[in-house]
Amino acid sequence: MITVALPKGALLKDSVTRFAAAGLDFSAITNPNNRQLMLPSACGKARALLVRNGDVPVYVAYGQAQLGVVGYDVLQEQQRSVAQLLDLGFGGCRMAVAVKENSPYRRAADLPAHCRVASKFTRCASEYFQKLDLPIDLIHLTGSVELGPLTGISEAIVDLVATGRTLKDNGLIAIEDLFFSTARLVAHPLSMRLDNGELQDLVDAIATKNPDNQ
Amino acid sequence: MITVALPKGALLKDSVTRFAAAGLDFSAITNPNNRQLMLPSACGKARALLVRNGDVPVYVAYGQAQLGVVGYDVLQEQQRSVAQLLDLGFGGCRMAVAVKENSPYRRAADLPAHCRVASKFTRCASEYFQKLDLPIDLIHLTGSVELGPLTGISEAIVDLVATGRTLKDNGLIAIEDLFFSTARLVAHPLSMRLDNGELQDLVDAIATKNPDNQ
Repeated sequence: MITVALPKGALLKDSVTRFAAAGLDFSAITNPNNRQLMLPSACGKARALLVRNGDVPVYVAYGQAQLGVVGYDVLQEQQRSVAQLLDLGFGGCRMAVAVKENSPYRRAADLPAHCRVASKFTRCASEYFQKLDLPIDLIHLTGSVELGPLTGISEAIVDLVATGRTLKDNGLIAIEDLFFSTARLVAHPLSMRLDNGELQDLVDAIATKNPDNQ
Repeated sequence: MITVALPKGALLKDSVTRFAAAGLDFSAITNPNNRQLMLPSACGKARALLVRNGDVPVYVAYGQAQLGVVGYDVLQEQQRSVAQLLDLGFGGCRMAVAVKENSPYRRAADLPAHCRVASKFTRCASEYFQKLDLPIDLIHLTGSVELGPLTGISEAIVDLVATGRTLKDNGLIAIEDLFFSTARLVAHPLSMRLDNGELQDLVDAIATKNPDNQ
């Protein structure tokens, strides 16, 4: 039986739509009354695990799920052994450096050496500033990173920006992008290697049957 | 001005009650329509930061908040430089090892060497099994850890148990406790050292004016 790890939150609805178009109906998972974290597809031939965005690569890397949907941002941060099969196109956002609107800094390279940068994505942030040859003091936060510059705990933040609304509401401005992120279909590499055709057929169907393009 | 880091979620209501009894009214923060993450007290003499449970010790360790309320579980996991001032008594739960109800293991020491254990609290879990001299393969998950044994990604989990309802719903059973956790009042050590009396008065008021004891 194929097991698919689906991410809770913003990417869930579009993920379910794409699997439905490919023949696997997991729509019960989006029912607001659903409390189950493990659900069979309507046809009974597959099942979905409903997990946190950041846990999707874990379940796929360990082979507990053969396929998963997760943001490119999480893949970049975790660097796990999963195969990226498809860019699903939805969930677009960018990983950006942001500062206070009234800050004198307008490029990441302008930030003072050893300044504090707060982020949920400390690996992405660390690699980015290393490439700029700018030593920084990273502060790992797990939520509401936009509070960083407001409280003065950090000069800048590295965070996901979708509409820019949260930044604006908090008097922040994005000054540089690290990368653009979208939802990706990922797979357990060994499961793909040992596949008798069933997994590949599903991946092909997800690739070709995109309701947004029809 | 005193800044207090308060945790979103289960500990928030009781935290606000205890500060209110000590003279600082942050009740606006519990208004369901509140979207602000930084709020002044009703008297205007202090302010609260509304942050994730795991971020409270960060804000306090960096001195951006002089005081904070956070679960002992988080303090054990993060081992940050904050001073534990008071056991506030509420938010009681235990950190426990749990397995499937039909598992043959009834003590943590029974688990097979190198078995997989999933947890959000990997430092606590790692230290615990090290003390037992039992090598394990830790899997870090960020949520819904109860899925671990159900999906087969892990033999056991280490997680917080309050009522036991989540374990029961998922066919799991707690077999051993690591420690008992309650909410703690923590402080930035240097702020306490440089305090002119204002902070200590507030801490004393929180210690003595407990609405539950009156």
